[in-house]
Amino acid sequence: MRFSRLFCYTLKEAPKDAVTPSHIYLIRGGYIKQVAAGIYDFAPLGKIVLDNIRDIIKKEMDNSGAQEVMLSFITPYELWEETGRAKKYGDELLRIEDRKGNKFVLSPTNEESVVDLVRSYVKSYKQLPINLYQINLKFRDEARPRFGLLRGREFIMKDAYSFHKDEEDLDREFNLMEETYKKIFSKMGLDFRVVEADSGAIGGSGSKEFMVLANTGEDDIVVCSKCDYAANIEVAKRKTIKKENPIKTETIEEVYTPNKKTIEEVCEFLGIDPFFSIKAVVKKAIFDDKEEIVVFFVRGTDTLEETKAKNAIGAIDLADASEEEIKKAGLVPGFIGPFGIPSNIKYVIDDDLRMAEELVCGANKKDYHIKGAGLLDANLLGNLTIYRDIAAVKEGDLCPKCGKPLKITKGIEVGHIFKLGDVYSKPMNATFLDENGKAKPFIMGCYGIGVSRLIAAAIEQNHDDKGIIWPKEIAPFVVDIIIGDVKKENQVKFAENLYEKLKNENIKVLLDDRKERFGVKINDFELLGFPYAVIVGKKLKDGIVEIRDRRSDEKIEVKSNEVFDFLKEKLKKD
Amino acid sequence: MRFSRLFCYTLKEAPKDAVTPSHIYLIRGGYIKQVAAGIYDFAPLGKIVLDNIRDIIKKEMDNSGAQEVMLSFITPYELWEETGRAKKYGDELLRIEDRKGNKFVLSPTNEESVVDLVRSYVKSYKQLPINLYQINLKFRDEARPRFGLLRGREFIMKDAYSFHKDEEDLDREFNLMEETYKKIFSKMGLDFRVVEADSGAIGGSGSKEFMVLANTGEDDIVVCSKCDYAANIEVAKRKTIKKENPIKTETIEEVYTPNKKTIEEVCEFLGIDPFFSIKAVVKKAIFDDKEEIVVFFVRGTDTLEETKAKNAIGAIDLADASEEEIKKAGLVPGFIGPFGIPSNIKYVIDDDLRMAEELVCGANKKDYHIKGAGLLDANLLGNLTIYRDIAAVKEGDLCPKCGKPLKITKGIEVGHIFKLGDVYSKPMNATFLDENGKAKPFIMGCYGIGVSRLIAAAIEQNHDDKGIIWPKEIAPFVVDIIIGDVKKENQVKFAENLYEKLKNENIKVLLDDRKERFGVKINDFELLGFPYAVIVGKKLKDGIVEIRDRRSDEKIEVKSNEVFDFLKEKLKKD
Repeated sequence: MRFSRLFCYTLKEAPKDAVTPSHIYLIRGGYIKQVAAGIYDFAPLGKIVLDNIRDIIKKEMDNSGAQEVMLSFITPYELWEETGRAKKYGDELLRIEDRKGNKFVLSPTNEESVVDLVRSYVKSYKQLPINLYQINLKFRDEARPRFGLLRGREFIMKDAYSFHKDEEDLDREFNLMEETYKKIFSKMGLDFRVVEADSGAIGGSGSKEFMVLANTGEDDIVVCSKCDYAANIEVAKRKTIKKENPIKTETIEEVYTPNKKTIEEVCEFLGIDPFFSIKAVVKKAIFDDKEEIVVFFVRGTDTLEETKAKNAIGAIDLADASEEEIKKAGLVPGFIGPFGIPSNIKYVIDDDLRMAEELVCGANKKDYHIKGAGLLDANLLGNLTIYRDIAAVKEGDLCPKCGKPLKITKGIEVGHIFKLGDVYSKPMNATFLDENGKAKPFIMGCYGIGVSRLIAAAIEQNHDDKGIIWPKEIAPFVVDIIIGDVKKENQVKFAENLYEKLKNENIKVLLDDRKERFGVKINDFELLGFPYAVIVGKKLKDGIVEIRDRRSDEKIEVKSNEVFDFLKEKLKKD
Repeated sequence: MRFSRLFCYTLKEAPKDAVTPSHIYLIRGGYIKQVAAGIYDFAPLGKIVLDNIRDIIKKEMDNSGAQEVMLSFITPYELWEETGRAKKYGDELLRIEDRKGNKFVLSPTNEESVVDLVRSYVKSYKQLPINLYQINLKFRDEARPRFGLLRGREFIMKDAYSFHKDEEDLDREFNLMEETYKKIFSKMGLDFRVVEADSGAIGGSGSKEFMVLANTGEDDIVVCSKCDYAANIEVAKRKTIKKENPIKTETIEEVYTPNKKTIEEVCEFLGIDPFFSIKAVVKKAIFDDKEEIVVFFVRGTDTLEETKAKNAIGAIDLADASEEEIKKAGLVPGFIGPFGIPSNIKYVIDDDLRMAEELVCGANKKDYHIKGAGLLDANLLGNLTIYRDIAAVKEGDLCPKCGKPLKITKGIEVGHIFKLGDVYSKPMNATFLDENGKAKPFIMGCYGIGVSRLIAAAIEQNHDDKGIIWPKEIAPFVVDIIIGDVKKENQVKFAENLYEKLKNENIKVLLDDRKERFGVKINDFELLGFPYAVIVGKKLKDGIVEIRDRRSDEKIEVKSNEVFDFLKEKLKKD
């Protein structure tokens, strides 16, 4: 492609709402253009990157034995009623009506559609397993679309759905998909981790996420400094630390702690290690049919992990509770503890506190705390006491597998694979006849990749302060031949010739033949992020051209008559 | 691909609402599955055909210099207000609201979107010409979705939009696109015609349609029996026939024609050649802001062409007028004529009647006609008399180019190219600076191909009473190796070996390794429409396999050790 004909116009200024590098550079590089909040047009360069990613995914999915389909984007509302998601899904599901008043939704995901497709054809275990995938449009009406392609409303997703006769076969496919995903993200040249993950709104019995590591990631990932343990903080585990409190109390006693409300204040006041205190976190839990005040108790040195907390009580969401709401529920802000808590209040205690003794906690009474409390002392607690893993793993906690320190790093979720079981097939009455002629619901898995999001994730991981640094495999062009001065006939002739030769080798090459200053061309090369530039400039008359490596910033002078072979060799190696 | 693993299940019965061959066979063959009226899932076979078509289109569009983009499917309503189409488009445009009440539309076409994209980057004539295309989802909320993929609501369209500095450059691109389209449809192995066409709702100054010839087509195409003239009946022209009426009347006179209302009745009653009569067709014309009764006058031997009629008066649509509505407007059904017609009635006279004389027509009075009327006699007509080409060309009319007889054939519109001019750029204030630094609106063209519709059109043209007969270029598989009896080891071994060898040659091959009877496999081969079958059956033990040609139904016995080379040769030739 000739740059002079390419529909690509770079901008000097970043849009005001763009804060992440991928958002800034995709807009400045003219890869995409915002149409509305979270909705983008893809200009030619953006489309090429998208297709590169799509091709890699398609090839590996086909190799795995999955078959590509195209499910309708507009799906009937009735299908969503069969699983109950018509109501449960919330406002991200955009519900629409056609001219005749029939109700539809814009597909945010396609479990219902694919179950409907499969149940109409598949009747016997002999037809299983099946894995159907698509690379298709999705729409989620995000409350706060942001960060460009990272959290858009209209986006491209690869979604696959597998159908099995039993859990064992699902496990096999789940592992196959994990391997397939590893191949896909490796081929794209991305640094990623596979982590244990929460199954969230999709449901099911197990899931793993694929995280592209990047400082700007929205997800916290817990990784072991030694072994291969890795998990999203939403589900990360740690080794329980057992420590004995050096301070022993004979009995449980109330102590006067005037105006000491935070863990720090109380522990300092009483001269106690915060490890031996209980922190109360009050939330307003939102359920399908009600809202309720719930108290979560964790160690004074821990923080509450909200996804764990939500799952512990089966809530749809957790919101902050106001001081007024806390008081109205009968609680005393700053002095809440598990002992003597009002009997109508639901509360959950972190697993790590299960056998803990000699603790300090709120006395549920203004200006008083309790000392020497032990959670073994069951009769002090209400009947509803439940223990769950609700604390957030923190840097320095110990690996649940090998006991070595854990680290926390940032990641961008680009893939998620789920064991769904019969969560969708059962309510949709999608069954097959097993070996004994008995009808059973399909056992399902589902496997997603954020295709357009991958463009952004790749940039978040691969950029500098000048622009994008594309991994070669997904770059829109791999070589950018820059003509230093298009008025110089020798430069034009040499560049054109090299351009044709590289094209004939199926190398993705751009010829910057624009009537622009050299500085403009180099800036665009750096902003747009092509892996290599060949600079055909003044030194050509001495038989020299320069090759620039965008990632290393290395500048190599090469004899002009050797540059073609040099590039061919280099592209093979790198 | 092995048939035993392919997600494809054929059906014996056609769905009740399926009447066209493509609809019947696509559903029976398991290529697609209906989700809702005019909305379909594409199963793997359907997706492969779609991709084959997409690949051919992409390759030729890229070769032509057009650049692929991906415009958003959800587009802001405000863009559609800029051109006025937000209101004008009618109910096919599905208007939706997001969770915040912002208004959007589901893209039925993307003129507004692409103008918005281009105006934000292109400021100078130096950046022109540009041709941007996409192969993307569209939605039109058709009042009567029907015929499967022929008239769906959700569908895939290739839409391209070009931008130019003047009409001359648009003409060049328009011709380039015509040539590109010819290459595309030729490569697909389709028999098609390029015809003059109506520009319809898109607007602009000229357009051509690409019609796949098929008996089941919805469009009537007028083609010359001699020269290359071809046009959609909506715009087809003919040579005006000049005949003199042998019966001469001295003066215009009213004649009593009791109860003679039709042309046939009147002409028989008066002993007159219907060629010398005027037929009145009354319609209710629907405009942006009103409805109105309009009378169209054509020769007694002609019929009204509704699209021509609609365009003649600039109406959005024409509906039938009830007898009551006709009477209410002051007209006398069965006796309507141009002379003495109520002065408030708008009427249009066909061009062919412009100089005609000695005619019979209604007298606007019950049971009376007029004889000897001449349309030269202007003072007999109202002031509003307009002449337009509103008659439908019929079989046997004469070619406007060469004068030879015209024929009428049926076609399916699969492509349409338009000269838009500034119809969209002007209202959207999308301008560039020309050579003199003067701001001018872009001169535009647009170019559509019905991508998913092409699947159906190909079948309408290529089928028999057993099923589909795919053109090789778009067939999901070109060779279907049928194992006669999977229990016979020699058959399985031979077939597997041939399958691997053909795959290695990049031949699209399916191995029917299912545990099904031979008859089932042959029926599926015929229904699914693969170009060739290789039958590995009983004769294999004598060193013979059979090759079947789906189109010619030819059966060729080939020595088993020569079949690979034979097929390679055959696929190269055909």
